[in-house]
Amino acid sequence: MAERVRSFWGWGYEESFPNDDARKELATRLRAVLGHVPEPLSPPSASAIVVPEPRFTVPVELRSLGTTDTRERARHTYGRGYRDLVRGFRGDFAAAPDWVFYPTEESQLTLLFRFCESEAIALVPYGGGTSVVGGTEHVASGRLRGTACVDLSRMDKVLAIDTASRTARIQAGATGPRIAQQLAPQGLSLRHYPQSYEFSTLGGWIATRAGGHYATLYTHIDDLVQAVRVVTPAGVIETRRVPASAAGPAPERLFLGSEGAFGIITEAWVRVQPRPRWRASASVRFAKFSDGVAATRVLSQSGLFPSNCRLLDEREAMLHGITQVPRAVLLLAFESADHPLEPWMERALSIASDLGGDCDEEATYTAEIVYSLSPTAVSRPPAPSVAPASELPNVGRDADTATWRRSFLDAPYMQSALVSLGVVCDTFETACSWERFPELHAAVTRSVEAAMRTACGGGTLTCRFTHVYPDGPAPYYTFIAPGRAGAELEQWDAIKKAATDAILANEGTVTHHHAVGRLHRPWWEKERSDLYGSTLSAAKERLDPHGIMNPGCLIGTKT
Amino acid sequence: MAERVRSFWGWGYEESFPNDDARKELATRLRAVLGHVPEPLSPPSASAIVVPEPRFTVPVELRSLGTTDTRERARHTYGRGYRDLVRGFRGDFAAAPDWVFYPTEESQLTLLFRFCESEAIALVPYGGGTSVVGGTEHVASGRLRGTACVDLSRMDKVLAIDTASRTARIQAGATGPRIAQQLAPQGLSLRHYPQSYEFSTLGGWIATRAGGHYATLYTHIDDLVQAVRVVTPAGVIETRRVPASAAGPAPERLFLGSEGAFGIITEAWVRVQPRPRWRASASVRFAKFSDGVAATRVLSQSGLFPSNCRLLDEREAMLHGITQVPRAVLLLAFESADHPLEPWMERALSIASDLGGDCDEEATYTAEIVYSLSPTAVSRPPAPSVAPASELPNVGRDADTATWRRSFLDAPYMQSALVSLGVVCDTFETACSWERFPELHAAVTRSVEAAMRTACGGGTLTCRFTHVYPDGPAPYYTFIAPGRAGAELEQWDAIKKAATDAILANEGTVTHHHAVGRLHRPWWEKERSDLYGSTLSAAKERLDPHGIMNPGCLIGTKT
Repeated sequence: MAERVRSFWGWGYEESFPNDDARKELATRLRAVLGHVPEPLSPPSASAIVVPEPRFTVPVELRSLGTTDTRERARHTYGRGYRDLVRGFRGDFAAAPDWVFYPTEESQLTLLFRFCESEAIALVPYGGGTSVVGGTEHVASGRLRGTACVDLSRMDKVLAIDTASRTARIQAGATGPRIAQQLAPQGLSLRHYPQSYEFSTLGGWIATRAGGHYATLYTHIDDLVQAVRVVTPAGVIETRRVPASAAGPAPERLFLGSEGAFGIITEAWVRVQPRPRWRASASVRFAKFSDGVAATRVLSQSGLFPSNCRLLDEREAMLHGITQVPRAVLLLAFESADHPLEPWMERALSIASDLGGDCDEEATYTAEIVYSLSPTAVSRPPAPSVAPASELPNVGRDADTATWRRSFLDAPYMQSALVSLGVVCDTFETACSWERFPELHAAVTRSVEAAMRTACGGGTLTCRFTHVYPDGPAPYYTFIAPGRAGAELEQWDAIKKAATDAILANEGTVTHHHAVGRLHRPWWEKERSDLYGSTLSAAKERLDPHGIMNPGCLIGTKT
Repeated sequence: MAERVRSFWGWGYEESFPNDDARKELATRLRAVLGHVPEPLSPPSASAIVVPEPRFTVPVELRSLGTTDTRERARHTYGRGYRDLVRGFRGDFAAAPDWVFYPTEESQLTLLFRFCESEAIALVPYGGGTSVVGGTEHVASGRLRGTACVDLSRMDKVLAIDTASRTARIQAGATGPRIAQQLAPQGLSLRHYPQSYEFSTLGGWIATRAGGHYATLYTHIDDLVQAVRVVTPAGVIETRRVPASAAGPAPERLFLGSEGAFGIITEAWVRVQPRPRWRASASVRFAKFSDGVAATRVLSQSGLFPSNCRLLDEREAMLHGITQVPRAVLLLAFESADHPLEPWMERALSIASDLGGDCDEEATYTAEIVYSLSPTAVSRPPAPSVAPASELPNVGRDADTATWRRSFLDAPYMQSALVSLGVVCDTFETACSWERFPELHAAVTRSVEAAMRTACGGGTLTCRFTHVYPDGPAPYYTFIAPGRAGAELEQWDAIKKAATDAILANEGTVTHHHAVGRLHRPWWEKERSDLYGSTLSAAKERLDPHGIMNPGCLIGTKT
């Protein structure tokens, strides 16, 4: 199998970027929604990339770990948020890192720290490069005179599996598929499927508190992390591999969400699970989104813990082709490696139905899947094989869910395609209490629609719940609006500001599962107490005394 | 109802300390196990308490908040761990705080901070005073010249209830029963029942990461805390009331386990629940503890989430009168406010039975309990009423569970009584992976039994699991050994050292749910990375720049 080439400007693999015909067809379809949409522009050509000359050279012991290759530097310039796609599509790689390093072991990180400290170089840890919040930008400001991108992709091994305790020790650079490949022979799975699953890494998930597969209970990578190992400029912190502890403030929690500001997460013990043997899925229709919200709240408080509990508003359900008429749709699924799921699903449908849901279509129960499990206690995993199909995100099996799943995986490629049409489109998410949700939702809708009208002359906004908690939902919004050639970033800025201001004013959080980065920092600084911010700065000064680690990300640089 | 008087040296209420006849009978029973046990000594008399003269006076604006009353100072001298009981029983109150303050609002805390900073006084936050790890000792060392105990018991109100989101804003000084009283009219409950439930407080639970009612899933107060408000010498940190977030390292986690070293937790938004309407309970017997361990592991990984899953080893089961012959016993229970529990219990018993458990006695299912719930969204609670009986810890309804429950609540009084018999007795707990448990358990048993033989000439050790996780159990040990009058603390030291050394050497944590305090600090400093310790010190310097907050607890004082 020929190795697929990663796009240097857009989402994922270059070959998966929709071709001209597909994008023309997309433009035609979009005109029905947005009015004017221009013909697609061609994506930038690799041969035309311009990056600045590297601002420094490196000593011989680091040279073999790094590269100044133009395409590599361009590819590592940005994450893959809307602003990144637009800048990349425009061929703007002025902020490319001077060097990209590919360490294979921790001792090399220490060499890199010493080099960057003595030479005043910013060091940006890089996992899959899928940040949507400017988590991996390369800024040499203040006393810093250059930037080094440290790509962890060569540290991607499952180092040990403890089948009795269902945990695995995994290197931070392992992507979703690499983890799946190495766990599959033991019948195990991490069951963490962010939309970036194919490219993003364990270390990136931990650094950004990524959200995953489960709609309830184990919603974030936080819930799957047993212990972390972090190499900082000041030394190593390794937390103990125990299921729980009350010994001081939980050390792993300081690094969950640390976004490379303190050091580099190099490995973690994570909680893994046998692949599910039983699955149940169903979809429920509601006349109005607010009816669906009421039912989803009760479900989230029921103690049933569905693996999927994804409520789509009317527009979202129609956009994804799940309904032809305006209905809110709740996609519901349970999975278990231990037991059949009829009692769980039946009770869930009974709750939904009591609260006005239309559960006319029968729930789907898959037959029991039988795997053979290896009884080894702690073992080195066998050589990786190809990831089994059953490892791919699978929230259920009914028709609505299958439709949903295709959309879910294609969405990031779609956004890259939309950028080539000059369309302003993005997603944003939050979490709030159930009590606050109606008001927050109304305010967000009002503000974003107004901003789209003002900045773009119109546009459309949809909402779904990606995760739900007994104390509140995590609403996830998608907006799409006509762009003005060359003004897309300013248009996007206006919409993003309207959205985030409305979220903060209505007691939401600036992000449910996409971290702070550089993008959310101004709002996060309002969300958190200043004193907490300065406490994190004190921690950073201890761990990164020279201030080389991902400067400006999460924590402001000193002026 | 006359107000019951708290013991100034022992557990709980003075009136509940077993009388002479009861303690004589206890001594007789114990002789069968331990050989020589002396006749009980009389507890110390309040009239004989001697405390040192207060080392400082306070300005007029603080005088009305505080007291130098001898009994109050004695009562606040220690927590209620074994060492505390022995010292208190001996009438050793040399370390009494100089003053005890009872603030009623946050502005008074700020006054206290300013006073203690300018006068170089150690300030020790005090909740229920039930620490078993020396969390509330009053040490004026280094430049500090006196100690102030800040008792939060007058800040004990439920300030708001959000019934839609099932959360409540509660002041830190509220005890278990005070919280129950104020939530009951809404049909809600925090469902957090540490053994200290009657006396310990929300703030204390948060500061120590207390373990509670649930054997799985929501095991620690950590899992029930949505947001905290902390008043530190450097200012206030309030975290946002959201169900989840990925915005930076979770701020509330820095204060869960902070043990008063950073500031004083004044209130929290916590996740509450409707009282259970369905309950199921059962007990399963195993020929050997190791068989029970294997079954409990599978249960903890089943996704069934029993509310109780407490495995007692052979000695523990016999000691509590649950079995007459040596059998390990698993106490199993489910509870729900949403649905009947037959499918859950049936599957759990089927797992236990497949793995060699004897489930001959039928499970008990209670009839549905119907409560009337108030539909108010966010409201001030009505005036407190008496806590309903159903609020008391209730892990199930079968006979074994009822026996267990009585033992559970009486245990701390029993320890005070044993101290009066000169018996060396205590509990300690840890958590480790399932893979490490057999070796850890063997090493702990070997070390503690050897230490009891050497220090005491014998003794007995029992084990149970209080909480279980997919990745490991939380074993909880009880030891009891004959003491030598006047040498009990040295005997206890030798046993505690043997236990904790064995735990650390076998990849356990120094504590699963009792915090670090002063007692565990030497071991915790080995358990955690030094760099993490110095990162916490950096945080402390930011939040408590004068080093007045609970010095020596959790974080070492500078030399």
